[in-house]
Amino acid sequence: MADMKIVFLGTSAAIPTQRRGLSSIVIKREGELLIFDVGEGMQRNFLQAKLGINKKMKVFITHLHIDHCLGLLGFFQTMSLLGRTKKIDIYGEPRLREFLNENFRIINIGLSFEITIHIIDKEGIIINEQDYQVSCCRADHSVPAFSFCIKEHPRPGIFNIDKAIELSIPKGGMYRRLQNGEDVIVDGKLIKSNEIVGPKRRGRKIGISGDTRPSLKLRNFFDSCDILIFESTYNQDYQEKAIETFHSTSAEAALLAKESNSNKLILTHFSSRYSDATILLNEARTIHNDVDFAEDMKTFHIPYTE
Amino acid sequence: MADMKIVFLGTSAAIPTQRRGLSSIVIKREGELLIFDVGEGMQRNFLQAKLGINKKMKVFITHLHIDHCLGLLGFFQTMSLLGRTKKIDIYGEPRLREFLNENFRIINIGLSFEITIHIIDKEGIIINEQDYQVSCCRADHSVPAFSFCIKEHPRPGIFNIDKAIELSIPKGGMYRRLQNGEDVIVDGKLIKSNEIVGPKRRGRKIGISGDTRPSLKLRNFFDSCDILIFESTYNQDYQEKAIETFHSTSAEAALLAKESNSNKLILTHFSSRYSDATILLNEARTIHNDVDFAEDMKTFHIPYTE
Repeated sequence: MADMKIVFLGTSAAIPTQRRGLSSIVIKREGELLIFDVGEGMQRNFLQAKLGINKKMKVFITHLHIDHCLGLLGFFQTMSLLGRTKKIDIYGEPRLREFLNENFRIINIGLSFEITIHIIDKEGIIINEQDYQVSCCRADHSVPAFSFCIKEHPRPGIFNIDKAIELSIPKGGMYRRLQNGEDVIVDGKLIKSNEIVGPKRRGRKIGISGDTRPSLKLRNFFDSCDILIFESTYNQDYQEKAIETFHSTSAEAALLAKESNSNKLILTHFSSRYSDATILLNEARTIHNDVDFAEDMKTFHIPYTE
Repeated sequence: MADMKIVFLGTSAAIPTQRRGLSSIVIKREGELLIFDVGEGMQRNFLQAKLGINKKMKVFITHLHIDHCLGLLGFFQTMSLLGRTKKIDIYGEPRLREFLNENFRIINIGLSFEITIHIIDKEGIIINEQDYQVSCCRADHSVPAFSFCIKEHPRPGIFNIDKAIELSIPKGGMYRRLQNGEDVIVDGKLIKSNEIVGPKRRGRKIGISGDTRPSLKLRNFFDSCDILIFESTYNQDYQEKAIETFHSTSAEAALLAKESNSNKLILTHFSSRYSDATILLNEARTIHNDVDFAEDMKTFHIPYTE
C-alpha cells in the first residue's frame, strides 16, 4: 500500500496572480517526489508545503516556456543552501540541458548535489522503477512539449489468509513466496499461488498534460487514468484564443477526460483573467462527472481503485 | 515638488520565506520607476502593487547572484504579455549582458519592447537626467557588486510672491525666468533673481547598499542620505557569519548610517532565520535614532528635508 498524493505548487498560466503562482505539480509517492514543471516562485510553496529538501527526487519539464522552467535555478540554489546531498534526475527536451548548463556557467549557483539531465527526444517509457513507470507523449503546443503518465505496476492480489490457515501453510517465507506468484509445496502437496492469492490488482495511473491542445494521441495516452491533471487555460468563450495559443478550454479538457475513460479530472493552469476558477469547473462538470480544480497548496490523496 | 516613494517588493536574503520574497526595491519618482534588483517572484508583487507595466523604467542589478537577478526574465515576459511598449534601460556588471542574451537565445521570451543593457565597469555617475543623477560605488561582496545612490539636483529656492507683487513684476514668463535664476528688467529697473528667489534647496538622496560588508568607501558614498536602504542579513550574534558571507549585521548597518550622517535607515535583506525582523530593528535602534525595516509591499514616502 504505497501512499500517493498530488500537491499543486503553482496553478496559473503565463502570469502569476495574487492567488496563483506559476506551474508546478508534485506527486509524492512513498517518500519520493516526482515534480512536473518548476515555474518561477515554486520554491516558496515547496518550502511551505514541507515536502522535504533531501527526498529522492525526479523533475520533469513539460516544455521550455519560461513560466514552466525558470524556477528550477532558484529551487536548486535553495536546496543547496539548505544542504541537499541526494542527486536529482531531471527530464526534458534537448534545450533543457543548454538552459541549465549556460545558467550554471554564467551564475555560479554552487550546487551541493549532483544533477543528471536526461534528454527526452522520443515518446514512450522513460523511467522504469521497481514499482512504477513514467512514460511521455508529444503534446500539441507552440514549442516542443511533452505530456506524462505515471503508472504503477500491478500490485499482488488479495491473500486469502483463511484458506492459507486451512491448508496449514506455515507463516513467513512461504506466505511471501505465494504472494509473489510462486507455487509452494507443503507436506509434499503442491499449493498453487493462485489458490491463495487473487488476481493481480491494477496500480494507479496519473496523467499530466502540460500545455497542449487536446488531441487523439493524448486521448489514447491518457487511457483509463485514475486521475488526469489537464490544463484548462480558458473557458469556452475563448475557444479561438485556445486554438491560437495551443491551449485547451475546460470543456475540451473534460471531453478528453471522458473519452479517455479517466476516472477523475483535475483542472489547472488557469489564465490570469479568472480570479475564480468556478466558471471553468462548472463548464467541465457539464461533460465529466468527477471534476475538481487545483489551487496553490491544494493536496489530493490518490486512493487505489482496486 | 516631485513625488517620490520607495516600495519594497522583496526583502528576504537568499531563500524566500512565507512572508518575504527575494530582493527587489522600486523607487517611484514622478511616474518613473527605478528598480533595484529583481529577485525570483518579484513580478507577482510588482503586479499587486499596481506600479504600472508601461511606465518609464530603469533597472539596476546590484550583483549577479541568482536571488537578485533571476526574476528579470519572468518580469520581462509578463510585461510583454501585458503589452509593454516602452524601452527599458538596465544596468549591471558585464555578466548581466551574457545572462540576458543567453537566456533570450535559449528560451524565446518574445519581448514586446526594447532593452538597452548598460554595462557598469567603473564607479561614478552612471545616469544624469534633468532632475536627478544615479551613481554607483563598488560594494564589498563575494562577487562583483555595486551600491547605488539616487541624488536629485538642487531645486529652485522659495519664490517670494509678496515681494514680486510689491515690485510690480508681471506674472508668467517673468516669474519663470526669475525662478530659473535669471535677472530681469521691469520698467527699466534691474531685478536680480536672488532678490525674489531664495537659495537653491537640496534635492533628496537615497542610498541602496545591495549585498555588502560595511566599508569606509560606502560610508563616504552614502554621505548625508535622506534615506539609506542597507542590507542587514544578520544580527550581531552572527557577526562571524556576516564576515564570512560578505554581508552586514543590523548593528553595522546602523553604524554606517550614523557615520555617513544618513537621516533615516531602512533595513532589508533579512536571513530567512528571522521570521520577525524586530530583533534586527531593535539592535539598529541602539545605534541610530531613525530606523525602520522593510516588509514586502511596504511603502515609504520620501519628503523633502528643505
